[in-house]
Amino acid sequence: MRHTDRNVRIAIDAMGGDHGPEPIIEGCVQALEEKRFTPVLVGKRDEILSYLPLYYQDKIEIVDADDAITMNDQATNALKRKESSIYKAVELVRDGQADGVVSAGHSGATMTLATLRIGRLPHISKPALATLMPTDIGKKTLVLDVGAVVECKAQNLYEFGAMGEAYALEVLGVDNPKIGLLANGEEESKGNELTKEAFPLLKDLDNFIGNVEGRDIFNGAVDVVVTDGFTGNIMLKTSEGVAEAILSLMRQHIQKSLPAKIGALLMKRKVFSNLKKEIDYAEYGGAPLLGIDGCAIISHGSSNAKAIKNAIFQAIHYTQSDVNKKIEDLLATDQAE
Amino acid sequence: MRHTDRNVRIAIDAMGGDHGPEPIIEGCVQALEEKRFTPVLVGKRDEILSYLPLYYQDKIEIVDADDAITMNDQATNALKRKESSIYKAVELVRDGQADGVVSAGHSGATMTLATLRIGRLPHISKPALATLMPTDIGKKTLVLDVGAVVECKAQNLYEFGAMGEAYALEVLGVDNPKIGLLANGEEESKGNELTKEAFPLLKDLDNFIGNVEGRDIFNGAVDVVVTDGFTGNIMLKTSEGVAEAILSLMRQHIQKSLPAKIGALLMKRKVFSNLKKEIDYAEYGGAPLLGIDGCAIISHGSSNAKAIKNAIFQAIHYTQSDVNKKIEDLLATDQAE
Repeated sequence: MRHTDRNVRIAIDAMGGDHGPEPIIEGCVQALEEKRFTPVLVGKRDEILSYLPLYYQDKIEIVDADDAITMNDQATNALKRKESSIYKAVELVRDGQADGVVSAGHSGATMTLATLRIGRLPHISKPALATLMPTDIGKKTLVLDVGAVVECKAQNLYEFGAMGEAYALEVLGVDNPKIGLLANGEEESKGNELTKEAFPLLKDLDNFIGNVEGRDIFNGAVDVVVTDGFTGNIMLKTSEGVAEAILSLMRQHIQKSLPAKIGALLMKRKVFSNLKKEIDYAEYGGAPLLGIDGCAIISHGSSNAKAIKNAIFQAIHYTQSDVNKKIEDLLATDQAE
Repeated sequence: MRHTDRNVRIAIDAMGGDHGPEPIIEGCVQALEEKRFTPVLVGKRDEILSYLPLYYQDKIEIVDADDAITMNDQATNALKRKESSIYKAVELVRDGQADGVVSAGHSGATMTLATLRIGRLPHISKPALATLMPTDIGKKTLVLDVGAVVECKAQNLYEFGAMGEAYALEVLGVDNPKIGLLANGEEESKGNELTKEAFPLLKDLDNFIGNVEGRDIFNGAVDVVVTDGFTGNIMLKTSEGVAEAILSLMRQHIQKSLPAKIGALLMKRKVFSNLKKEIDYAEYGGAPLLGIDGCAIISHGSSNAKAIKNAIFQAIHYTQSDVNKKIEDLLATDQAE
């Protein structure tokens, strides 16, 4: 949206993530091979350079940062850690020196910093973390919030609905995206106090289809699913747990039978590889924090290079879209009504 | 627990379920082939007899019921429908003419009737629906509540913990069952207002291990997972949705490739059949409603004969166990402390 006359600039927290800088820098290199943009790697300069092939050293910029926030740190202290790689990476977006930020580091710290330092869009009470889930009909379902706002009010859920609609329209390219409210049944009478209060608010959105159930996330019945951060986080980790358990059980059974081993080999290329692609979060990149006045993509702590590459692409795509303006418009219209 | 001198008597709502009486009566017949008990089928006598092979007609009892509550009826009206099959089946337990009841009909109606007509155990504020989930290490995880109490108080979650412990000890035969509280992270600081308030109460249980995440349900890290009925229901339907989507994606890929088709054939007996058994709810039967002064097993509306058979076995097992006494003891000890 800004700086369309020059390369998109993406700030990348090089020190975040469970596996250190290596997969992050490797992901950055992979992204450079496919797309034109300027990565601004934030972290210890010497360490970054040690992982960066010579050929790429003049294709990137480095912002030195001595400190790094680890998973054991409290998110609330992030604001004081002004020399940390996350803080400095976020600050680049705040100062207009980068268009978006990607971090696989402490997600709480990244969300806090992005919200408070970059700031919220007008009419947004609280930003939400949105994630794409696979379905069995090819398309993806956007679910938000999956962990940013644990204790939600009805107004938050309404804003999540508008943000989800904007993201589906402007970034995912879905026409008339269907918005559903996650509940314990499809009937309007179902839900807890929070969803029952949010339901009439969400009716203001053009394509609100009412309550949806957990299974609807994966069958393509809906494009955007709205939920509070507590429930969304449990939904997300449940789905990861089920997928892991099913694949683990299959592996165990395959190991016990020779015909099954041969069968698995025959299925490897066309079935298991495709399935892995469809359900592997590395293919999605990361989760955008929607509702801030900029772009922040939160990646999984255990992201590999491919996940980082896709998170960078997501950031580029986001900054080139009109999603933030659309969020503002959708909520401004509503205020004016 | 009662009537150990005679056959266990299980009341079965013959009219409930999405597919009419046929799979229910077929499941009852299958159960009779494997175990000695007396089924009391409740519903339209003529219809029941039309599905029942002659050989079994003197092995069962029938209680005539003209009315049947359908999925479109409100649970709140169930108390007035005294001629309905669910009402009469529950009433048999209340009157001591049956030891337990199995219903694949309107689950809200069954829960309402079981709670109000059979009554709650001492110290129980609200009964909870408990379900077994598969893991990738062979054992099962008990999750409660999955839909009975949508709006929970901390005390409810505490009681769910005690009920889950009792069921794991007395019915599942798990020594020192580990109890976890479902939250958006393992740290004690994680959770929403409800779980943060319930956390210190649950510490009173011997084997409370703290917060657990969605993925822990499926990796065997915990034996009993406590959650409110809204979150539990979404967790349950999410897990069903993910499993269905993965199997559907695999089927689609298999159809597109001849080697994969052959591979799938080789994997059928040892991998897919076993996997199906491990994740198919029909293998589990139904969900016990814990906290009532009796035994009620709520089955899936779309239960096939095998699911009904296993639900009947579950009811027999339940009534022969000391689970209700254990629930009373665990909560009585606590009150005395």
